[in-house]
Amino acid sequence: MPIAPSVTPHNDLFLRACRREPVERTPVWMMRQAGRYLPEYRAVRAKVDFLTMCRTPELASEVSIQPVDLIGVDACIIFSDILVVPEAMGMKLVVEEGKGGPRFPDPIRSRSDIDRLAVPDPQKELRYVLDAVRLTRRELRERVPLIGFAGSPWTLATYMVEGAGSKSFRAVKELIYARPKDAHALLEKISRAVSAYLSAKIEAGAQAIQIFDTWGGMLPPEEFKEFSLRYITLTLQQVRRNGVPAIVFCKDCGHSLEEIAGCGADVVSLDAGIDIGKAREMVGSFVALQGNLDPGMLYAPPERIRAGVVRVLEKFGNGSGHIFNLGHGILPDVLPDHARALVQAVQEESRRFHR
Amino acid sequence: MPIAPSVTPHNDLFLRACRREPVERTPVWMMRQAGRYLPEYRAVRAKVDFLTMCRTPELASEVSIQPVDLIGVDACIIFSDILVVPEAMGMKLVVEEGKGGPRFPDPIRSRSDIDRLAVPDPQKELRYVLDAVRLTRRELRERVPLIGFAGSPWTLATYMVEGAGSKSFRAVKELIYARPKDAHALLEKISRAVSAYLSAKIEAGAQAIQIFDTWGGMLPPEEFKEFSLRYITLTLQQVRRNGVPAIVFCKDCGHSLEEIAGCGADVVSLDAGIDIGKAREMVGSFVALQGNLDPGMLYAPPERIRAGVVRVLEKFGNGSGHIFNLGHGILPDVLPDHARALVQAVQEESRRFHR
Repeated sequence: MPIAPSVTPHNDLFLRACRREPVERTPVWMMRQAGRYLPEYRAVRAKVDFLTMCRTPELASEVSIQPVDLIGVDACIIFSDILVVPEAMGMKLVVEEGKGGPRFPDPIRSRSDIDRLAVPDPQKELRYVLDAVRLTRRELRERVPLIGFAGSPWTLATYMVEGAGSKSFRAVKELIYARPKDAHALLEKISRAVSAYLSAKIEAGAQAIQIFDTWGGMLPPEEFKEFSLRYITLTLQQVRRNGVPAIVFCKDCGHSLEEIAGCGADVVSLDAGIDIGKAREMVGSFVALQGNLDPGMLYAPPERIRAGVVRVLEKFGNGSGHIFNLGHGILPDVLPDHARALVQAVQEESRRFHR
Repeated sequence: MPIAPSVTPHNDLFLRACRREPVERTPVWMMRQAGRYLPEYRAVRAKVDFLTMCRTPELASEVSIQPVDLIGVDACIIFSDILVVPEAMGMKLVVEEGKGGPRFPDPIRSRSDIDRLAVPDPQKELRYVLDAVRLTRRELRERVPLIGFAGSPWTLATYMVEGAGSKSFRAVKELIYARPKDAHALLEKISRAVSAYLSAKIEAGAQAIQIFDTWGGMLPPEEFKEFSLRYITLTLQQVRRNGVPAIVFCKDCGHSLEEIAGCGADVVSLDAGIDIGKAREMVGSFVALQGNLDPGMLYAPPERIRAGVVRVLEKFGNGSGHIFNLGHGILPDVLPDHARALVQAVQEESRRFHR
C-alpha cells in the first residue's frame, strides 16, 4: 500500500517551513531523536543487536515513532544507519557489541576494490528499509511527516575507506591527495547508489529527505567542494524528488555556507558553530534553515534550555523558513525530560515570531 | 644564565613575520613538530614515560631541538604538555601507558574544588619547564627562535572538568550552561595561572608564545566569546610580554575570526578549515597569520605536498605577515621525509612572494 508523499499530514508545519511558507509556529525535531537517550529505545535495543533493529521493519518503525509519541516532535525520521548503503554495495558490515559503532573489516584499498562495488537496486538489497518506511507512514497515520535520510557520498566514502570512524582520516586523505581519480570514481559510484536509495525512499513514502555529511568538515574548503559538496549536488540532481523537500547537513562546513545553499537542497541544516541570524542574512532568501541549538545545552536545566531556545529563535527572527533542531544529534545521556523541555519551549516561544 | 629575548637569532624570519616586517622567504614550523612521527623522538620516549620527558629538562630540550636539526624548521617550540599547568594548580595528573593521553582522576566537580585550586608560582611548581626553556635556548645557540606555549583557559578547563578528552563535553557544558558563575570563577583563576606561567617562560628565554585553544570550537560563537576568547584576552593582558610576540590558535573557530584578531595577539594561527586568503582580507591588516595546510596532506607524496604548499602561499599572496604551518598538529604516522618535503617546499617556493 504505497502512500503518495503529496498526502498532507495533520501537522504539516515541518513541510511548510521547508518550503518557506507561512506557519503558526516553528516546527521542531531533533537529529538522532530515535535514539539511546530514550529508555523505550533502549528497551527495544536490549532485545536485538543494532543491525537487526535496522533490518526489522517492525522494530525500526517502533523506535522511529517513539519520539513522536514521547517527546512531541513535529517530524519523524526513519530509524536506520547510513552504512546500510555501502553494505548493499557489497561491503561486509559488522557490529561487535561494546566495540564502538558498525565497521567494515575489509575497507576499500585499491581501484579494483572500487570497481568491484555494485550500485544496488534498493528494491532488492535495501527492501527492508523501504518496508520500514512504508510501515512507519502507515503507523504514523499522517500525524507528522516522515523524513528519509542517507549519508553523503563523501561521508560514506570515509567509512568505506577507513573501515570505521577515524581521528586522522589517513587512508581517505591519502586517497584524495595522492589518487584523486580513484577518489572521484568511488564518489561517483556512491552518488548513484545514494540517489537510487533516496528515490526509492520517496517512492515508499518519505515526505522529506536529509543528507548527512558528517565528515565534510574534515576537508579544507576547496577539497570540501571538490570531494563532498560536488557529489551531494550530483546526488540531489539524480534523485526523483516529486516535490519532496531535501535537507542537507554539512557538519563543520560554515566556511562554504553560500556554496552549500546552492547545492539543490531546499533546507540547509546548521551546526551550532554558526550564528543562524548571520546565516539567514547570507542564504535565507534561497533556502530554509534548520538548527541549531548546541546539543550540550540539553545537559542544562529546563529553564536554561528555554533561554537557549529563545536565543536561537530571536537570532533567526520573524517569519517562516526555520525548522528548529539541534546543531548535531541528541547525546545519548540527555534526560528525556530535557528533550521534552526543548520541544515544548519551541512550540510555546515561537508563536510570536510568526504573527 | 638568563638570555634576553631581545637577542636576535641568526634566523629571525619567524620573529620578523610575526611582526609583519619584510622577510626574504616565508618561515615555517609545524605544531607538534617535536613528536611521535620522528624515530629520534620515539627513541627518547622509549626510555621514559611521557610526564618524565616533560619534567626532565635535558630530555625536553633534546626532543625540542630534534626538528630543527632533522627537519630544518625556522622555529623551535619547547616540548611540554598543556596539562602541567592544572597539575601545578594542585590537580593530580596521571598517564597510564596505552590508555590514551594524560588525565585527571579527580576532576573539578564543585565550587569548592574550584576554590581549592592554587595559582602556582611558576618559579617553584613549574621550574622544570623554565629550566627546559633556559637549556633549550642555550643549546639552540641562536640558530632559530624558541616558542613557549600554554593551553587556553577554556581548553584547560575542559580537561580539568571532564578529567580527560571527551566527545560530548557533558560536565563542562553543564558547568557553563547551568552554573556560569562557577565557570567564570574557574576560568579567571586558570587565566592567572596561565599568564604567570607564560610570563615566566618569557623571562626564561622564550622569544614568542602561543596559546592553544584546542576546544574553543566545541562552543557556539557566543559562548566561545564568553568562556574562551574573553579569558585568552585576559591572559594576554596579564602576561609581561616585553615585546615578545603572541600567537593564538583557536581551532575550529573561524566563525569569530575578527574577534580573535582583536584579542591582543600578534599572530592568529588558522586551522585548515579557513581560506587563508579570505582570512588575510578580513584581518591581515591587524595581525600576522599562521597556517594552514591540512595535516592530512602529509600523507600524500612529496610532489603533491609541494602543490599544496604553493596553493597556501598563493592564497596568502605577496608580502610578509605569514608563518607557514599546518592547520593542526603533525600526525604521528607521517613519514619524516614528508615533513622535510613540506619545509623544503616552503623555503623554495615562498621566495617569489617576497620580492
